[in-house]
Amino acid sequence: MNDLKRKILGQLQVDLAQIEAALKDNLTPYLDLVSETARHILFSGGKRLRPLLMILAARLCGYRGVDDKMFSCVFEYLHAATLLHDDLVDDAELRRGKQAAHMKWGNETAVLVGDFLLARGLSIAAKTGSLKVIEIISEITENMSQGEIHQLQNKGNIDISENEYLEIIRRKTAILIQGACRVGAVIAGADEKKEAALSSYGYHVGLAFQMVDDLLDYLADTQTIGKKVGADLREGKLTLPVIVALNAAMPSDRRYMEKIIKNRAFSVEAFGKLIELLKKYGGIRYTQQLASENIQKACLALQVFKEGETRDLLADIARYALARKV
Amino acid sequence: MNDLKRKILGQLQVDLAQIEAALKDNLTPYLDLVSETARHILFSGGKRLRPLLMILAARLCGYRGVDDKMFSCVFEYLHAATLLHDDLVDDAELRRGKQAAHMKWGNETAVLVGDFLLARGLSIAAKTGSLKVIEIISEITENMSQGEIHQLQNKGNIDISENEYLEIIRRKTAILIQGACRVGAVIAGADEKKEAALSSYGYHVGLAFQMVDDLLDYLADTQTIGKKVGADLREGKLTLPVIVALNAAMPSDRRYMEKIIKNRAFSVEAFGKLIELLKKYGGIRYTQQLASENIQKACLALQVFKEGETRDLLADIARYALARKV
Repeated sequence: MNDLKRKILGQLQVDLAQIEAALKDNLTPYLDLVSETARHILFSGGKRLRPLLMILAARLCGYRGVDDKMFSCVFEYLHAATLLHDDLVDDAELRRGKQAAHMKWGNETAVLVGDFLLARGLSIAAKTGSLKVIEIISEITENMSQGEIHQLQNKGNIDISENEYLEIIRRKTAILIQGACRVGAVIAGADEKKEAALSSYGYHVGLAFQMVDDLLDYLADTQTIGKKVGADLREGKLTLPVIVALNAAMPSDRRYMEKIIKNRAFSVEAFGKLIELLKKYGGIRYTQQLASENIQKACLALQVFKEGETRDLLADIARYALARKV
Repeated sequence: MNDLKRKILGQLQVDLAQIEAALKDNLTPYLDLVSETARHILFSGGKRLRPLLMILAARLCGYRGVDDKMFSCVFEYLHAATLLHDDLVDDAELRRGKQAAHMKWGNETAVLVGDFLLARGLSIAAKTGSLKVIEIISEITENMSQGEIHQLQNKGNIDISENEYLEIIRRKTAILIQGACRVGAVIAGADEKKEAALSSYGYHVGLAFQMVDDLLDYLADTQTIGKKVGADLREGKLTLPVIVALNAAMPSDRRYMEKIIKNRAFSVEAFGKLIELLKKYGGIRYTQQLASENIQKACLALQVFKEGETRDLLADIARYALARKV
């Protein structure tokens, strides 16, 4: 564990424990199977990034209520719901090192428990008593489903553009993280300027977070990230490192890359060669650079707020989103 | 078409046309595939029972706004979302005489477009500006997913009780129709007594509607209902006619019925024999009777309102829900 992560976790111990408790307390299904499946996806080592960001955003805006932990569950439930549905859509085998829910309980249960988590999220959103919060949440869910469909439509599409990639990750990832930060501001009764600043912070952290996720699929090893390396490519998902390298590659290298991408059942050696090409043609560097720029924008947005512990923590989290190895 | 249906449709022509237009206008996805898939399930001859009931409930309570058609889309979108997910869960081949969406576009698209429709429903619910409406909608979605899971858990369960069956159809069907009627009252600003009356009306119509649906699976022919007769049993779904007959049957008949139920790939002859046994042991009669009692309760609940065209229409719809052959 690196120093930044240790520092962040040290400051967030109490919050994280309270989030865990809230996630358990607010699930309340009447069927054991729902409980079991939802817990499998909810309590398997998630980072709790989204609820944490909502809570910290609220704190930064002077929130004084006692319901922030409960409200923050919305974002983890929505996230877990999309994980259940996406793993099914991608036919993923592993999630955080454990068997994916649809493999363990079947597609049917994964679909329906995902629906339940979505509905629970909505119910808790309604408890904020804020129409604005509810509008944000419904906009998020619309965007996420469309982002996933957009991604699905581009499976195996060797010609997907950088812009299309950005549109997909904006909808499927950034808008939820942005929404978490924005809702934090809203429940704290922040003014428009602060709400916009936190919205911008979350948006850029979200984009960078997904870019790093897509990088790790090439740079980490299976044990560390808890899913198969090269999983994106096996699922036909072309992410930014590949898009950039494909566009820059000489014809012979491009043909080689296309062959691996189309094959999907590529060998470890072929995958290693592909990574070399991603490096050679700047796919890795470009993605790191773009993620880094987004983190800079995120930290810049925080300048609206006075210096202090919570602002520093949010800046640390942004930097960690970039530096993380898992 | 029988006289009652003709009479109802005659009075609802304008409303139905406006509902169709609203369902198209409020879909607004940014991807063609979402549009195509959503339209496939939305515009394939649905009865529009749920939006109609919301609109009529609002009218009965003196609603004078112009947004009732838009708001009513919530209930058709939620309904369509569950149809997409349920057909996938049940691996159904046909829906309203057309190929089911998951067969046509794959499970992935059916899951994600279902999520999109759920999210659209929620977005429109937020437009009512009423937290109460949003709470009702979120409660509905929680119940529906759990009802479906409950049903899934009982697939092939020969010992499912009448109470469990009632619990399942309450959650998966009745609560949505109840919610549509209740929301109609809420957006019209009705008092508690009227809201409770319409809630009760919708609840009982919903229960009866599902019981009749379950009966039609035994009594109608494929062409009329647009899906395979005996589909429930092939999917391992034991509904009230079967539950009642199983409990009343002599040992030898019960064994015969169990054999058919467990086989699933039963012949037309075996299915014909089963229907005879459902009749012999009162499964059909009992279900018709219970559905009829629920319709009586629904009509009784309407007595709170003054006599008039809209009240009569709601009573007619309740009676039609019982008498329908499709």
